[in-house]
Amino acid sequence: MEHKEMNNQIIKEGLTESGEKSGNAGSNATAHPLSQAELAAYIDHTLLKPESVESQFIQLCQEAIRYNFKSVCVNSSWVPFVANMLKGTGIAVCSVIGFPLGAMDTRSKAFEAGSAVAGGATELDMVLNIGALKSGNLSFVEKDIRAVKRACKNGVLLKVILETGLLTESEKIQACEICMKAGADFVKTSTGFAGSGATIADIALMRSVVGPSMGVKASGGIRTFDQAIALIHAGANRLGCGASIEVITGAEAKGDY
Amino acid sequence: MEHKEMNNQIIKEGLTESGEKSGNAGSNATAHPLSQAELAAYIDHTLLKPESVESQFIQLCQEAIRYNFKSVCVNSSWVPFVANMLKGTGIAVCSVIGFPLGAMDTRSKAFEAGSAVAGGATELDMVLNIGALKSGNLSFVEKDIRAVKRACKNGVLLKVILETGLLTESEKIQACEICMKAGADFVKTSTGFAGSGATIADIALMRSVVGPSMGVKASGGIRTFDQAIALIHAGANRLGCGASIEVITGAEAKGDY
Repeated sequence: MEHKEMNNQIIKEGLTESGEKSGNAGSNATAHPLSQAELAAYIDHTLLKPESVESQFIQLCQEAIRYNFKSVCVNSSWVPFVANMLKGTGIAVCSVIGFPLGAMDTRSKAFEAGSAVAGGATELDMVLNIGALKSGNLSFVEKDIRAVKRACKNGVLLKVILETGLLTESEKIQACEICMKAGADFVKTSTGFAGSGATIADIALMRSVVGPSMGVKASGGIRTFDQAIALIHAGANRLGCGASIEVITGAEAKGDY
Repeated sequence: MEHKEMNNQIIKEGLTESGEKSGNAGSNATAHPLSQAELAAYIDHTLLKPESVESQFIQLCQEAIRYNFKSVCVNSSWVPFVANMLKGTGIAVCSVIGFPLGAMDTRSKAFEAGSAVAGGATELDMVLNIGALKSGNLSFVEKDIRAVKRACKNGVLLKVILETGLLTESEKIQACEICMKAGADFVKTSTGFAGSGATIADIALMRSVVGPSMGVKASGGIRTFDQAIALIHAGANRLGCGASIEVITGAEAKGDY
């Protein structure tokens, strides 16, 4: 494992040790540089493209082990495969649910969640029902999240993707409030498949709504070290990246998102 | 209902009456003009964008009734809503499954299929597991389709989306062969969410592989009357369209796909 300390004078303000569960907005930790290893602990190393093949998932897991990323994030059909590869490493297995449209029916989202957990997932990134939110059917959106939450047994984390690129500011606020009410552990910006990805403004807004006790995950279009640090400064305590290695090493990203 | 005969001298070659189930490649029906009503019977009137709201689904169903489209095609969370609106109209309710990535685990696809059928779906458009196909795991791809097929009780139709825009020619052929073997009713080109949509060449290829006894659905990027007719000539006996009204009336398409 390589955990070279970086020389970058990055200021880490108010972050919890692992970026886990609790947020960072209300903490009073002293500012200090953020090392490569510390940054790696924020990252869900992500491969969600439908055409991705087995050799790429092997590489994904090997990279996650080498750099000690927080988790590996995949579609549910790849969960047992990566769970097997990551056994005993302490790296979390994250499955997306109802992805990327969020328009799958509630019972099926809950079933997929249960299936992913049974297959070894310890974190679930579900997409909320965007159309129901925009139709003003907020109780549907809440029940949809609660149904997936019930599949999160034994400390499985639930992150809810808002798909901020498709929402108005007031919808983003409503969505955060529903996620809090429904017992989600994190709100997350984007799938990477629709419109824009994570922005500083959205992360700051989401953090201001959910407060310090909930997680905020930035995802979609994170391709550079500076961008990652800026998102953390804005309030993110988890990052979803395909270009994770480029992000933590400061190399130029080659991936698509 | 409007069923104005169109004056276009469109040649209909070898099509079955409704474009239903059986293909057209081997038929010897005499060429004759294709009316607007006949073209409507080929069309799955489609709304799959995650941000679509209730009023748009109401409009979708009203349009389907007015023009007598073959079906209304939606994400599974909207199935009960459109099934209720279309009750007694004879218009089919089509649900997408594992959409649009096809990377959801098999049991969850089968569950979503069962849930959609219970909610009123009479046709299912599933996405095959593209990554498994490209990884050479053909038995996985076949089992994945068979699992959804088992949810197709009482004559529910199963269409399998290949996502041709992501496949090589030999992968397209393999996919068609697996779909036939697994008992699917249709092969379908595209989700509309990844890369290119339906092409004349892909439809001709798919029809040549599956022969006359299976359906071929063209979808993704169908925006004009001429394009629709060309795809039918190439071998399609079903069309998935968001811009269905523009397609059948020859008006300029305003939709995104």
